[in-house]
Amino acid sequence: DGGGVESLDYEVIENFAYREEQAQRGKLYVSYLLVVKWFFALLIGICTGLAAVFINIAVENFAGWKFSATFDIIQKSYIAGFVVYVLFNLALVYSSVYIITQFAPAAAGSGIPEIKGYLNGVDTPGILLFRTLVGKIFGSIGSVGGGLALGKEGPLVHTGACIASLLGQGGSTKYHINSRWFQVFRSDRDRRDLVTCGCAAGVAAAFRAPVGGVLFALEEVTSWWRSQLMWRVFFTSAVVAVVVRAAMGWCKSGKCGHFGSGGFIIWDISDGQEDYSFAELFPMAIIGVIGGLLGALFNQLTLYITTWRRNHLHMKGNRVKIIEACLVSILTSVISFGLPLLRKCTPCPESDPASGIECPRPPGMYGNYVNFYCSKDNEYNDLATIFFNTQDDAIRNLFSAKTINEYSSQSLLTFLVMFYALAVVTFGTAVPAGQFVPGIMIGSTYGRLVGMFVVKYYRKLNIEEGTYALLGAASFLGGSMRMTVSLCVIMVEISNNLKFLPLIMLVLLISKAVGDAFNEGIYEEQAQLRGIPLLESRPKYEMRNMTAKEACGSGRVVSFPRVVKVSDVVSILRSNKHNGFPVIDHTRSGEPLVIGLVLRSHLLVILQSKVDFQHSHLPSDSRGGARSIRHDSGEFAKPVSSKGICIEDIHLSSDDLEMYIDLAPFLNPSPYIVPEDMSLTKVYNLFRQLGLRHLFVVPRPSRVLGLITRKDLLIED
Amino acid sequence: DGGGVESLDYEVIENFAYREEQAQRGKLYVSYLLVVKWFFALLIGICTGLAAVFINIAVENFAGWKFSATFDIIQKSYIAGFVVYVLFNLALVYSSVYIITQFAPAAAGSGIPEIKGYLNGVDTPGILLFRTLVGKIFGSIGSVGGGLALGKEGPLVHTGACIASLLGQGGSTKYHINSRWFQVFRSDRDRRDLVTCGCAAGVAAAFRAPVGGVLFALEEVTSWWRSQLMWRVFFTSAVVAVVVRAAMGWCKSGKCGHFGSGGFIIWDISDGQEDYSFAELFPMAIIGVIGGLLGALFNQLTLYITTWRRNHLHMKGNRVKIIEACLVSILTSVISFGLPLLRKCTPCPESDPASGIECPRPPGMYGNYVNFYCSKDNEYNDLATIFFNTQDDAIRNLFSAKTINEYSSQSLLTFLVMFYALAVVTFGTAVPAGQFVPGIMIGSTYGRLVGMFVVKYYRKLNIEEGTYALLGAASFLGGSMRMTVSLCVIMVEISNNLKFLPLIMLVLLISKAVGDAFNEGIYEEQAQLRGIPLLESRPKYEMRNMTAKEACGSGRVVSFPRVVKVSDVVSILRSNKHNGFPVIDHTRSGEPLVIGLVLRSHLLVILQSKVDFQHSHLPSDSRGGARSIRHDSGEFAKPVSSKGICIEDIHLSSDDLEMYIDLAPFLNPSPYIVPEDMSLTKVYNLFRQLGLRHLFVVPRPSRVLGLITRKDLLIED
Ligand SMILES: Nc1ncnc2c1ncn2[C@@H]1O[C@H](COP(=O)(O)OP(=O)(O)OP(=O)(O)O)[C@@H](O)[C@H]1O
Ligand SMILES: Nc1ncnc2c1ncn2[C@@H]1O[C@H](COP(=O)(O)OP(=O)(O)OP(=O)(O)O)[C@@H](O)[C@H]1O
Ligand SMILES: [Mg+2]
Ligand SMILES: [Mg+2]
Repeated sequence: DGGGVESLDYEVIENFAYREEQAQRGKLYVSYLLVVKWFFALLIGICTGLAAVFINIAVENFAGWKFSATFDIIQKSYIAGFVVYVLFNLALVYSSVYIITQFAPAAAGSGIPEIKGYLNGVDTPGILLFRTLVGKIFGSIGSVGGGLALGKEGPLVHTGACIASLLGQGGSTKYHINSRWFQVFRSDRDRRDLVTCGCAAGVAAAFRAPVGGVLFALEEVTSWWRSQLMWRVFFTSAVVAVVVRAAMGWCKSGKCGHFGSGGFIIWDISDGQEDYSFAELFPMAIIGVIGGLLGALFNQLTLYITTWRRNHLHMKGNRVKIIEACLVSILTSVISFGLPLLRKCTPCPESDPASGIECPRPPGMYGNYVNFYCSKDNEYNDLATIFFNTQDDAIRNLFSAKTINEYSSQSLLTFLVMFYALAVVTFGTAVPAGQFVPGIMIGSTYGRLVGMFVVKYYRKLNIEEGTYALLGAASFLGGSMRMTVSLCVIMVEISNNLKFLPLIMLVLLISKAVGDAFNEGIYEEQAQLRGIPLLESRPKYEMRNMTAKEACGSGRVVSFPRVVKVSDVVSILRSNKHNGFPVIDHTRSGEPLVIGLVLRSHLLVILQSKVDFQHSHLPSDSRGGARSIRHDSGEFAKPVSSKGICIEDIHLSSDDLEMYIDLAPFLNPSPYIVPEDMSLTKVYNLFRQLGLRHLFVVPRPSRVLGLITRKDLLIED
Repeated sequence: DGGGVESLDYEVIENFAYREEQAQRGKLYVSYLLVVKWFFALLIGICTGLAAVFINIAVENFAGWKFSATFDIIQKSYIAGFVVYVLFNLALVYSSVYIITQFAPAAAGSGIPEIKGYLNGVDTPGILLFRTLVGKIFGSIGSVGGGLALGKEGPLVHTGACIASLLGQGGSTKYHINSRWFQVFRSDRDRRDLVTCGCAAGVAAAFRAPVGGVLFALEEVTSWWRSQLMWRVFFTSAVVAVVVRAAMGWCKSGKCGHFGSGGFIIWDISDGQEDYSFAELFPMAIIGVIGGLLGALFNQLTLYITTWRRNHLHMKGNRVKIIEACLVSILTSVISFGLPLLRKCTPCPESDPASGIECPRPPGMYGNYVNFYCSKDNEYNDLATIFFNTQDDAIRNLFSAKTINEYSSQSLLTFLVMFYALAVVTFGTAVPAGQFVPGIMIGSTYGRLVGMFVVKYYRKLNIEEGTYALLGAASFLGGSMRMTVSLCVIMVEISNNLKFLPLIMLVLLISKAVGDAFNEGIYEEQAQLRGIPLLESRPKYEMRNMTAKEACGSGRVVSFPRVVKVSDVVSILRSNKHNGFPVIDHTRSGEPLVIGLVLRSHLLVILQSKVDFQHSHLPSDSRGGARSIRHDSGEFAKPVSSKGICIEDIHLSSDDLEMYIDLAPFLNPSPYIVPEDMSLTKVYNLFRQLGLRHLFVVPRPSRVLGLITRKDLLIED
C-alpha cells in the first residue's frame, strides 16, 4: 500500500518567487539565518533534555510507588500485593493505550522507522504533529511505568524529532502558540536539518550519549550529511547532556521523589573487568553468534506478529487495541510477579562489607539481592532481582560486577525465555514502545549466562560476569537493529568504559553479519511493513544492467504546456496521482523545449488563490515585477506532516475554468536530468545522494555546450 | 600554479571493458570483494598500529637517551651537557632533513592538506608512494626525536594513508613486493575508500582515539560517506587501538627501553576536577577567545613564512633546506636549554606523600618538578619541567592535576612566547611535522595561565589548573585547525574524561567562531598555498545567481568524433591539456549526438598499445566479442600517485598515424549532464556530492522520456 506515501521535496525549488526572495536578501540575512539555526539547536537540546528528564522522573516515580506499595502489602498478604501490582500496571497501561488510540495514533510504536523514513525522504502523515509529541510523552510514561516489556528510548528519539520540527515551524499553528519570527525554516530541506538535530538529541537524552547521538543520526542519514550540520548536531547533543546532568544533580538532593539513585540509563561498569585474555575471545564470539540468531529471530517473529495484528486485530478498531494492550499488561504482571514466587530462594553469600553490597536488600529499594517470598531472612530471590524490578535496575543488576554467582543459570534461562516471549508479544501493541531496553535485558541475560560458564571453565582469570552481560546486550541489539558505529559508541558511553570498545565491536561485527544472513534490521522491516519505501545507501546489484529508461517505464509522460487552461489543469490533476509534471514550451521556431517541472502542490496553491489566472492564452512576460508580488515563497511551503490541500477541495466557477495560467513563474526551471541510457546505478547514486524526488529522463543531448570541472567551481569571493 | 594539479576519477567509467568484466563476475565475486575489503581494513589497522608503535618507541628512546645522557653530564659540567644536547638534536634533525630532501620530498610537512585534497578529489603527485611512507616514518622519528617544535601526529595520518594505498595496490610495483591476488582495488574510487580507512587509522594510532579517528575521516570527506564504509573505518580504528594497547602492554615489562611509562599520547585526567560551576564558564569562554585569536595568528604567520620560504629559500635547492633545518634545530636547542638556566629555582612545596609526587624529581625521569641548575637540593626549575623535556611529558605536566602553584606565571608566559615563536619558525622546514602537539603545548600553557588566575580569584571552588590547560589546548587547536566534532572527541579521548565534553565543546565553538572571523583553517590555507583546489562542502553564496553555462566559459569544446584518425588524436591531445573530451557521433539522419566522454588517460593507453587501430574509418560493430578481449579494465587503471604516460612519450610511425580508432568501446557512455541554465549551486552540489571530475553542460532537452521517482528505484531482488 505504498501508493499513498508521499516523498518530501528536499530539493530547493528555484522558482521565480524563490529567486526574487533570494535577491532581496542580503548577506546579513544569511548571518541572521545562521544565528537562528544555532539558537534552534540550543532550544532543541534544552527541550529534548527536559522532556527526557520529565519522562524519566515520571516513570521512576510511578514505578517506585508501585514497587514500594506492593512490597509494603506483601509483608502482610501476597495475594493483595499481587492484586495491587496488577491493577497499578493495568491503570498505567490503560492510560497509555487510551491516549494513543483516542488522541495520537501516530505516536504508537517506537517512531524510529518513521523518522528514518522522514530523513530518507518519505513523509508519513502525522508523525511530527504536536499531538503526537504529547501522546508520545505521556503514552510512554504509561507504558514504561506500567511495566511492559518495552523501553522509553525509541520514543525519545521520536520526541526529539517532534520537538525539533515544531520549533522549526515556530510552534503549533493549530494551538496558536506560534511566532512568525522564527518561521524561517519552512521548506522540507530546512526541516530535515532540524529533525536530524532532534533525532540526535533524542538519542543523546535517552542514553546520555552525546557522541552516540550524533553517530546515530549520521548512520541513518549519511547521504546528505555536511560537516556544518554535524557540528550543530553535536552541539545539540552536548546541550542535552548538560541539561540532563544538571537535572540529575538537582534530583540528587531528593527533590524528585523516587527518582534519584535510579533512573536514566547509565550502567557504569568503569570499575569492572580490567583486562581480558585472548582465550576469552572465543566465548565472546559465541555471544555474537547467539545475538545474531536471537536478534534475527526476534525480527522475524515481530514481523509475523505485527502483520497478523494488522490484518486480524487492529482493523477492528480502537476497542480491540485497548483490550489487547490491557491483556498484555495483565499477562506481563502475572508472569513477572508469579514466576519469582515459584523460584526457591538462595542463601546470601558471605557478605563482604567492603563491597557495599547488602544481602538481602530491604524491599522496595534499588540494588541486587532482593528478598522476595523467601522463608529465611538471609535469603534472596535471584529471579525477583531481575524480573520484579524496573528495567533500569534489572539491567544494572545484570551488569553489576563483583557479584559472581548471584544468579543461577536456571533463573537466567527462565527469565530469558519468558522475557523474550513477552517482548515479542508486546511489540506492536498500540503504545509507545522502544526496543532498546528490552533488547538489552534479553542480551545481557544470555551474556551473563555465557559469562557464568566462562567463570566456571577459565577459573583463573579475572573475569566479571557483568562484562559478558554488556557484550550480550550489544550482540542482541546488533543482531536485531543492525546498527553499527552508533550502537558501539552508545554501548561504550552507557557503560562509561572505553576499554571495552574493541570487544563490543567484535561482538557487533559477528552479530550483525549473522543477522544479515537471515533478514533485515528491525527498523527496515517495520518500515517496509508500514509502506515506508526507504532507499538504501547502496544501489542494488541488478541496477548495473538496467538503464534509466527501463526503470521509469513506458507510460506516457503527463506534462503541461507553459500556458494552460484552468480546466485542463483540473482535469489532469484529477486524472492521476503524480506529484510532479514537466512543463513543455515551444521555441520561436516551433520546436518543443522542456522548461521545468511543476509540483502538484504548487498548482493547487495557484488554483486555490486564483490570483494568477489570466484571460489571455499568451505567456505574460514574467520579467515584470508585478507578477512576483502576488506570492511569496512561504505560501508554497508545505504544512508540516499533513497532506495539504487536495484537488477535490478546490471549487472553481465555470468562469474560472475558462481562464489560463502561465506556469513559468512557478516551475522549478532546472530539475536534474539524466540521459536515457545511463545505468541505473548512477541514477540511483544521483537520486539518493542529492535527496531528489523527481528526475527527468531525457534523450541523449545533441551538443555539449561546455564542460564543468573542478576549476570552474572554484570561485573566490 | 594550480594548473598542474590533476583531479581523480572517482566516477566509475562504465565503458565496454568494464561492463564485460562486470558481466563475467557473479555474485560470488561480490562476496570475495567484501571479504578482501574487510581483510584490508584489518591489515591497514595492524600495519598503521605497528608503524605508530615503532615511531613512538624510536622517538621515546632517542629522546630518553638524549635527556639521560645530558643529565648525567650536567652533573659535572653544564657546558659539556649543552654541547652534547645540541649535537644530539642536530644529528637527529639532520638525518631527518637529509632523508626528506634526498629521498622523499613528498614526505615533508604534515601531509594532512594533501590527504585532505586526495579525499576531496585532487591528486598531488607522490604523496602515496612507498618512498614517501619510508621517508615519513624515519623522518618524523628524526624531527620529533630531535626536539623540534613539531609533532608526530599529523605525519601518522599521512603514514596511515600511505599504508592503505600501498596495500590497496598489492604492494609497491617498483620494489617488486606486490601480489596480483589483491590487486582488485585499482580504481581511484576503491583507493579512496582505503585511504579513508588509513587516514582514520592514523588518527586512531596517533591519539589512541578510535572514535576520534572515524570522525576525523568523516569530517574531511563527508560528501561521499556511506554507512558501510563507516563501519569498516571504525573497525580499522579499533584494530589500531588493540594493536597499540597490546604493544604498550608488552612494553610495560621494560622490553622497549625508555619507552614504557612515557610515550603515546594519553593525558589521563580522569581523576581531575569533578565538577564545575557556572561562574567558571566565563574564564573558559575567555580561553576560547584567546585560542581563536592565537590560532588565527598562527595560521597567518605560518602562511607568510611558508610563502616567504618558498619564494626565497626552498627554490635554491636542497642544501638550503638542510642548512635551514639545522639552524632551526640549533636555535631550538639553545632556547630550550638556555632559558631554564636563566630561571631562578623554586623551593619544593610541602610534600604530600599520598599524592605520590616527588619533589625534586631525579633528573632524567618522567614527572613534574625537575631539579635543573638549582643551587639547593629541594628546589625545582619550573621552566625546565616543561621546556627541557619531551613534548609528551611536558604536556602531561601541564595537564597534571593536584599540582596547583607548580608553575609561576612568568615561566609559563616565557614558555608560551618562545615556544609559539619556535613553532612558527619550525613550520615549513623540510621535515615531517605535525601541528597537533605544538598546538596542545601552546594552548595548555595559556590555559593553565588562565587557570592560575581562576584559582586565585575563585578560591573556594575545587578547581584544577590541569582542566584549564586541557581547555586551552582544545581552544588553540580549534582556533588553528577549525575542526569541530572530531577534535572534540579526540580531546575527550586523550584526556579519558567524558565529563569535560560540554566544556571542550563550548571552548571549541568560541575559538572556531573567532578564528573564522580572521582566516581559514591551517589545512585549508596550506592546501591553497600548495595549489590543491579543495571544494568546500557548501557552495558559495554567489553561485545562486550564476548558471552552469556561465561557469564553464565560452571556449570552444574540444571533442572527438566516434571514429577518429590517429593523427588527429595525437594533435588534439598535444594542443591542449584537458583530460576529458566529449565524443560526438551522428544518427542515421545525420543529426549530431553526444555518445559519451573519453578520458585522456584512456586515449593514451590506446595509443600506446596500438591494438585497437583499424584501417577503416567506419565504426566497427562493437557487439562482437573480439573487440573486448584486447583490453581488460585493469589496463586503464591509473598507477598510484604518478602522472602515468604522457603524450610526448608516445611515438607512432607514420603508418600508425594514418589509421583510425573507434572510440565507442572506451568511452564513458553516460556522464552526468546538466542543462545550461541550472544554477551553479545545484551544479556544485551535484559535482561535489558525487565526487565528479567532468560534467557536461548541455542545451535544455526537447522531450522528457520519463520521470524517475522513488518508486522506480525500489527494486526487489
Ligand atoms: N508526470 C508524470 N508522468 C508520467 N509518469 C509519471 C509522472 N510522474 C511520475 N510518474 C511515474 O509514475 C510512477 C509513480 O510515481 P508517483 O506519481 O507516485 O510519483 P510522485 O507522486 O510524483 O512522487 P512520490 O510518490 O515519490 O511523492 C513512477 O513510476 C513514475 O515514473
Ligand atoms: N574538452 C574540453 N573542451 C573545452 N574545454 C574544456 C574541456 N575540458 C575542460 N575544459 C575547460 O577547461 C578548463 C580547465 O579544465 P581542465 O582541462 O584542467 O580539466 P581536466 O584537466 O579535464 O580536469 P582536472 O584538471 O580537474 O583534472 C575548465 O574551465 C573547463 O571548463
Ligand atoms: Mg506518489
Ligand atoms: Mg587539468
